[in-house]
Amino acid sequence: HLPFVLFSGVNVLESRDLAMQVAEEHVKVTEALGIPYVFKGSFDKANRSSINSFRGPGMEEGLKILQEIKETFNVPVITDVHEAYQCAPVAEVADVIQLPAFLSRQTDLVVEMAKTGAVINIKKAQFLAPHEMKHILKKCEEAGNDQLMLCERGTMMGYNNLVVDMLGFGEMKKFDYPVMFDVTHSLQRPGGREDSADGRRAQVTELARAGMSLGLSSLFLETHPAPDSAKCDGPCALPLGKLAPFLKQMKQLDELVKTFDELDTRA
Amino acid sequence: HLPFVLFSGVNVLESRDLAMQVAEEHVKVTEALGIPYVFKGSFDKANRSSINSFRGPGMEEGLKILQEIKETFNVPVITDVHEAYQCAPVAEVADVIQLPAFLSRQTDLVVEMAKTGAVINIKKAQFLAPHEMKHILKKCEEAGNDQLMLCERGTMMGYNNLVVDMLGFGEMKKFDYPVMFDVTHSLQRPGGREDSADGRRAQVTELARAGMSLGLSSLFLETHPAPDSAKCDGPCALPLGKLAPFLKQMKQLDELVKTFDELDTRA
Amino acid sequence: HLPFVLFSGVNVLESRDLAMQVAEEHVKVTEALGIPYVFKGSFDKANRSSINSFRGPGMEEGLKILQEIKETFNVPVITDVHEAYQCAPVAEVADVIQLPAFLSRQTDLVVEMAKTGAVINIKKAQFLAPHEMKHILKKCEEAGNDQLMLCERGTMMGYNNLVVDMLGFGEMKKFDYPVMFDVTHSLQRPGGREDSADGRRAQVTELARAGMSLGLSSLFLETHPAPDSAKCDGPCALPLGKLAPFLKQMKQLDELVKTFDELDTRA
Amino acid sequence: HLPFVLFSGVNVLESRDLAMQVAEEHVKVTEALGIPYVFKGSFDKANRSSINSFRGPGMEEGLKILQEIKETFNVPVITDVHEAYQCAPVAEVADVIQLPAFLSRQTDLVVEMAKTGAVINIKKAQFLAPHEMKHILKKCEEAGNDQLMLCERGTMMGYNNLVVDMLGFGEMKKFDYPVMFDVTHSLQRPGGREDSADGRRAQVTELARAGMSLGLSSLFLETHPAPDSAKCDGPCALPLGKLAPFLKQMKQLDELVKTFDELDTRA
Repeated sequence: HLPFVLFSGVNVLESRDLAMQVAEEHVKVTEALGIPYVFKGSFDKANRSSINSFRGPGMEEGLKILQEIKETFNVPVITDVHEAYQCAPVAEVADVIQLPAFLSRQTDLVVEMAKTGAVINIKKAQFLAPHEMKHILKKCEEAGNDQLMLCERGTMMGYNNLVVDMLGFGEMKKFDYPVMFDVTHSLQRPGGREDSADGRRAQVTELARAGMSLGLSSLFLETHPAPDSAKCDGPCALPLGKLAPFLKQMKQLDELVKTFDELDTRA
Repeated sequence: HLPFVLFSGVNVLESRDLAMQVAEEHVKVTEALGIPYVFKGSFDKANRSSINSFRGPGMEEGLKILQEIKETFNVPVITDVHEAYQCAPVAEVADVIQLPAFLSRQTDLVVEMAKTGAVINIKKAQFLAPHEMKHILKKCEEAGNDQLMLCERGTMMGYNNLVVDMLGFGEMKKFDYPVMFDVTHSLQRPGGREDSADGRRAQVTELARAGMSLGLSSLFLETHPAPDSAKCDGPCALPLGKLAPFLKQMKQLDELVKTFDELDTRA
Repeated sequence: HLPFVLFSGVNVLESRDLAMQVAEEHVKVTEALGIPYVFKGSFDKANRSSINSFRGPGMEEGLKILQEIKETFNVPVITDVHEAYQCAPVAEVADVIQLPAFLSRQTDLVVEMAKTGAVINIKKAQFLAPHEMKHILKKCEEAGNDQLMLCERGTMMGYNNLVVDMLGFGEMKKFDYPVMFDVTHSLQRPGGREDSADGRRAQVTELARAGMSLGLSSLFLETHPAPDSAKCDGPCALPLGKLAPFLKQMKQLDELVKTFDELDTRA
Repeated sequence: HLPFVLFSGVNVLESRDLAMQVAEEHVKVTEALGIPYVFKGSFDKANRSSINSFRGPGMEEGLKILQEIKETFNVPVITDVHEAYQCAPVAEVADVIQLPAFLSRQTDLVVEMAKTGAVINIKKAQFLAPHEMKHILKKCEEAGNDQLMLCERGTMMGYNNLVVDMLGFGEMKKFDYPVMFDVTHSLQRPGGREDSADGRRAQVTELARAGMSLGLSSLFLETHPAPDSAKCDGPCALPLGKLAPFLKQMKQLDELVKTFDELDTRA
């Protein structure tokens, strides 16, 4: 029962300065609370609703920012890949590489990720049942990589809505890999705005508590100093100024539930 | 931020002796933990899948059992009503009367329940969105009763499955009535067995923790000394022998989260 | 492969005159098209969203209207019952009595309906899978009535939305009872308006065609001369003035598909 | 109101001989019935559940088979692409290139497809609402291609199930592009088998009728001479031997409904 690890940062690497500001605040807060921390930032948002949406700095520039963050703050970093050719160069910088939810069944990408030897964070697709994740885990294993994590980020429940099925965490824990909770993406309302997804960031603490009460390996967040002017997924982002009190609750909760015995309630 | 109240007991009043045994164990455990307790037992299961399913002792006999429990253990009791004519006699014994989920939109029943002046526990129907509960609250208020509680018990997600939308608790809290979590019914798999619903009682602790982490007014449980031989909803019942360690976790969790400040994460 | 029977009329019996007007138009149109016809009208809407919603004339007055329609137009009538005591008197007038979707699992009501010997139309609850309807059919059979019909009216798909699963008709046909399609209720958007359900009557022809293309026993409709001023479910009602061209399409479609051979596509 | 076009053939190009056999039967049947025909075959199944599943002959070999079919039978062909680099070479052979459902939001792929100038068939993702397809259409238009088609293939309804929302066709028709119905993929039960999706091919005629009754531009099918030994999606495939009687029904239905007037049922 290790304490939870925080994977957090920004949705997209809007700029080097924003990334540095966000990383600095995270390092300060997590050190004070004793929470192991991994910086998260995307170099490309490859599936925006609109062709005109901001996509990010691109791989080359993005990896430079991630490298600077690693060196400046001495923290590991995570980022996501979208095409097979990105896996090797990204894994040279990123400690953890992430398989996007919509792409989680693309065999070539999965295999190329596996080959890097990096830790892989597999996002559960919104259209998959928890038990179906075993297929993706098996693909990675058969490609020679068992440094795997599973990440819940909500399941489609009717049109334009996501729900987090709390029973899914237990199902995924049975695969014996760490299970993480991406709480901010789970707050999305897909298609909820004219040109993009809407979100329910006012409820981020509630949803995060529910997940953390189960005793998870990791929590995944996206934050922004000014969510209303974020270039992507602002409606879901935790305001950076609330990071400290938010994490303090999560830390206390995590510590408590990890003292609990597992109860066999079958009989 | 009062401590949570436990509404718990049996699904159906299988017999006077079973009810007494279950009540006794609950009283012992809740006193030890300092949890306010209300005994729950149904006198009639009016919507079983099969006409041959056990339905219970009926209203007259059932109320006798509830009366004996009240007097013996000095605890309030809750039970559910299904038809308008039952409301008045049931409210003479029961401190809280419960509106079943499938019947939650039946105006005559709601009005008759309201007239009794008893506290009313309104189960959220599996087919209603959280925000739609305002209509049922309003029906009760207009019928002259504002001693109301709302109770989550899962929402239909595709065929033969229920999911608890943790964001729904927050939506329902906005109505300014106590919100309860019926965790055992939320574990149902409707239509999952040849003649009845299946359930996931092995996961009761997980789901209960997720709900309790939100800081709820009450928790609702059904228990059984031998779930596999229960006459109704055994697949969802908490084994009575696990009540003490289960509640101990809930109590600790409730105490912790009720020390948390509410965070405004809108900006 | 008999031609389809039309069950149609009004949602609620708003007044004797409205009911007569609607019945007269239906009789004229169905006679011209050669469609067997049963008049539909409810005497009580027992589960409106609001306590102040119009509920109807009540049982006594409603049955008088239905009786007058039977005698004036020489057509059978269908109406719905909500409580056990209504079954016997209603069955004296109504040729078919209907079990409401939300109440479809209430054993006492089902048993009392069965006892009347009337034909029973069982609405599939929005929260049940097609295969679960076998339990309700069995309840009726065990109560001594096998004059049964099943009626599709949409299934909950996420919050505030219904969908008609076209594969469900085939599953329900396997029970060897007539299967009817209530197309207008299937157009509901539950909770879609401030005080009531919204609907998609602009799409009634599309959805009706899809159902009728499967070769069904019956079609169920609610109509209104002025849907926008209807006292209940106007957003779903077929405008009475469009009944003739609408039914002409349904008749042609029904005739064609009932000439089709059943294809075994398993191998 | 043009007659429907058939896009049909095989799921994956298992072999040159199988493809030729299937194409020959389709050409014979569609000529006899006067149905315009486009051959469909995939050269790579890029998102199989298992890493060991059969994926196909690959792009180079697959395009050779498609070219031979074009020349031998003088029919257009459609195939799907999965990565940006495939678009240009595939469009040299294929008359229509298809955007897979899971990839329908990947901007780079969409843009590269648009650049080819080929007709693009956009599969509606199982996780998107019909109205959200406007974003993908707009991406293509902004990339300079308005030779577009939309294709329904079912929407996720709870875990491991798809449903076709018949009202979605009407919503998608409003975008003023042709709307196609992929009936065989709509029959999938995702995750329904140990290593792959299950399907409901016994119901293909029912579901196809429901769709065709709406008056569609095109129908999409996958067939196999021996579905139980197909290398991919056999549980959904129409047995090739049933193609003729199946299409005869679809042709008659299409002809009838395209004589129907559009009814304005709003008032």
